[in-house]
Amino acid sequence: MGKINLAEKFNLFSDHWSPKIVETIDDYEVKIVKVEGDFVWHKHDDADEMFLVIKGRLNMDFRDRREVLEAGEMIVVPKGVEHKPHADQECEMLLLERGNMINTGDAPRSDLTATVERI
Amino acid sequence: MGKINLAEKFNLFSDHWSPKIVETIDDYEVKIVKVEGDFVWHKHDDADEMFLVIKGRLNMDFRDRREVLEAGEMIVVPKGVEHKPHADQECEMLLLERGNMINTGDAPRSDLTATVERI
Repeated sequence: MGKINLAEKFNLFSDHWSPKIVETIDDYEVKIVKVEGDFVWHKHDDADEMFLVIKGRLNMDFRDRREVLEAGEMIVVPKGVEHKPHADQECEMLLLERGNMINTGDAPRSDLTATVERI
Repeated sequence: MGKINLAEKFNLFSDHWSPKIVETIDDYEVKIVKVEGDFVWHKHDDADEMFLVIKGRLNMDFRDRREVLEAGEMIVVPKGVEHKPHADQECEMLLLERGNMINTGDAPRSDLTATVERI
């Protein structure tokens, strides 16, 4: 139980679309992730998901619109809502959601489906 | 369901030790708060609590030590652990914890016990 410096944690890895758990809050997980390029359309039927941009810019596409998030901006994607994150350049984010979620949600498992480790 | 700019939300209030809900994730609440000066020793017997410093510096005292958090640093205080946050100068934080928690935990209700509103 010590403090966590997010910048130090981001320095520990360079892969994209592969969230790392940095802490847990009850049964929830705080994760950090670097993303670049396209993810897949997916949804999580039974859990909301929070994205907070730490560095860079994230495009969050919904079926009816796009939200563009800069550093210091966050969004919660409600359960059941299809979304597709993508970033033209590398973007660092903090994620928060219930533990043991599959990052690609209901989409077919693929190379983007991550095994989430703790750092 | 739209994005939230934290800086804009922080500009909406100036009171201290009075968290405001900015979003919910399932039954959890994302709150923001400005703090300055001393809080009370307290604990939450049944819920972990996350603090992420957005601006300024937070001192988090535990009975056996102090953690000093700068912007970009976070800590999770586990359930049942006594803690006392304080800040020499104004500090802005994002908090995450289960909904409907009492900010002063098991401490006697006081002027510091906040009614949490949504902004």
